[in-house]
Amino acid sequence: MSDRAVRVAAVGLGRWAKVLADAAGKSDRLKIVNCFSRSEKNREAFSRQYGCRAAKSYAELLNDPEVEGVVVTTPNDAHAQPILEAAGKGKHVYVDKPIAHTMADARLIDQACSDAGVVLAVGHGARRLQGNRKIKEILDRGGVGKLVMAECNFSNNRSLDLTPEQWRWYKDKSPGGPLIQLGVHHTDTLNYLFGPAKRVTAMVKRLYTPAEIEDVTMTLIEMESGQLCYAGSNWASQGAFYTYVYGMDANLFFTVDLDFWQRSDTVDQHSRLEMQRRGSSEHQSIPLARGDILREELEEFAGCVREKKRPEVGGPEGIAALAVVHAAIRSAATGRTVEIKEVMSGEA
Amino acid sequence: MSDRAVRVAAVGLGRWAKVLADAAGKSDRLKIVNCFSRSEKNREAFSRQYGCRAAKSYAELLNDPEVEGVVVTTPNDAHAQPILEAAGKGKHVYVDKPIAHTMADARLIDQACSDAGVVLAVGHGARRLQGNRKIKEILDRGGVGKLVMAECNFSNNRSLDLTPEQWRWYKDKSPGGPLIQLGVHHTDTLNYLFGPAKRVTAMVKRLYTPAEIEDVTMTLIEMESGQLCYAGSNWASQGAFYTYVYGMDANLFFTVDLDFWQRSDTVDQHSRLEMQRRGSSEHQSIPLARGDILREELEEFAGCVREKKRPEVGGPEGIAALAVVHAAIRSAATGRTVEIKEVMSGEA
Repeated sequence: MSDRAVRVAAVGLGRWAKVLADAAGKSDRLKIVNCFSRSEKNREAFSRQYGCRAAKSYAELLNDPEVEGVVVTTPNDAHAQPILEAAGKGKHVYVDKPIAHTMADARLIDQACSDAGVVLAVGHGARRLQGNRKIKEILDRGGVGKLVMAECNFSNNRSLDLTPEQWRWYKDKSPGGPLIQLGVHHTDTLNYLFGPAKRVTAMVKRLYTPAEIEDVTMTLIEMESGQLCYAGSNWASQGAFYTYVYGMDANLFFTVDLDFWQRSDTVDQHSRLEMQRRGSSEHQSIPLARGDILREELEEFAGCVREKKRPEVGGPEGIAALAVVHAAIRSAATGRTVEIKEVMSGEA
Repeated sequence: MSDRAVRVAAVGLGRWAKVLADAAGKSDRLKIVNCFSRSEKNREAFSRQYGCRAAKSYAELLNDPEVEGVVVTTPNDAHAQPILEAAGKGKHVYVDKPIAHTMADARLIDQACSDAGVVLAVGHGARRLQGNRKIKEILDRGGVGKLVMAECNFSNNRSLDLTPEQWRWYKDKSPGGPLIQLGVHHTDTLNYLFGPAKRVTAMVKRLYTPAEIEDVTMTLIEMESGQLCYAGSNWASQGAFYTYVYGMDANLFFTVDLDFWQRSDTVDQHSRLEMQRRGSSEHQSIPLARGDILREELEEFAGCVREKKRPEVGGPEGIAALAVVHAAIRSAATGRTVEIKEVMSGEA
């Protein structure tokens, strides 16, 4: 462990906190020194598992002088409060995607971190998949020619097992259901590859989930560039994850084996990128490097803390990804196309 | 050649007339005995190539007592006139998809054939691909469990070479561009697998084609069942054709190698259907039989003529597929969701 390692505290200690802690454990650039959850049982267990202190209150955690930053994995609707308090204490912030459940909270979070001069990093790891990185590299060197359209999907059947004890059950905590939980990865990646987004039209349905959220969503996005994108996301079918890019000179087909989604050090080995070049229907495999999307984004966060830089996915990028989600929700509710600027400026 | 072979005449002698004539040549259930095109050169060439008479006028063709039916491959906006005249003479009608370029013409065609008591078959061959037939069979036996959503795409780069001499150049003759030329195959297949459609929202763009039509389209369809479907279609990228079905128990992924699209007796060999079963990310290949979508639909047409039956894709099915196209065009133009019934009852 380097002396320069950034000391962080885990806030919200559910499943994803452990996935992130495992990723952090593979890096010498940050070290988990404290943790907090309202559940004493959870924080004691986390403390034992990851060898860190457990704070009895969030105030105690924020008063820990060793803690330089917080890694927030609380429920989406409980991002703002701990982040605002952390920023107020000068602590840097890494928050899992989405930045927040509402545009209003997202703006509060971004503003507070900006005002406090602390780093705000949002965990949109999907854009760091080696397949998406390679797509970006190919696009940047004009490898597919003029862009025509893109399609993506991120789906699994997690909504079928939801219970009223879980925050994801509720519309006000998890608006858009699979769209804000899974699809928001793709809205960020689409912004990264082709953005910014200009307008959105969408359909959402509640078909099979016992919860009050919707479980099937389809969103069309027109980018400022004029390019059209489709993002599908459901929470009821067998799992799927793909990004397809259609260009005048070539098409790209990127798929990920979701069985390895939580194993961020192996997921790239279980991904496939294929290219279909002009005049051929053959799909040629493109070799992918092996990365670790979670370790890399945590290390980038630590680097930004040390070097006073802004991260690749900060407040504005987190807000932009969320804006597409809220534009889609509004479009589905009203039956009309919704401009991104309408969501960016108004309440949602 | 069986004595019972239905004697037909080819009307409109472009590229697709020859593709259909080649398919008809592999069958003993129909025989091309006459042909007509306004171009004397084209009809003489077709006459030589396929060993049939060439009529000097459409009236002469319709007065040929041997001709029992017409195989119409005129431009989309020139379907109604020859069909109405043929029906008026008691000739049966096979017309390439789409049934017409407008809902008004489509209704005229359906009504005229119905009034005359002649068979009207619309050439939506894509639903006859062995992959789509197998999907239907799997759906019908509940093989994917409850349906969650479906996605499909049919794209190629044909609009880039269009010239003002070609009818596909013009919006009034080919409304929706790739959507009415390619995507309409999928709107029929989606109706076949999951329909009827209830409402539609869409985005269309003109990005790269020199023609006045749009060249990129994305359409979302809500079925009466509540299921959501996406249909993408562009006319500017490298070619793609797929149908994906997401179910609670399994997903199906069907892709076609478009290099073999016009070779209807081999296209099934160059298709791939994969199934992802519950709890696994593995895609297992499902063997497909080998059919011939064009020979089969022409033979079905002949069978309907002989046995006085109605074809699988007649006027109502052709109208339903076209209605999704026109609802999408209207949605894109107005920025709102459009009900299918609105397009079915109104002018488009």
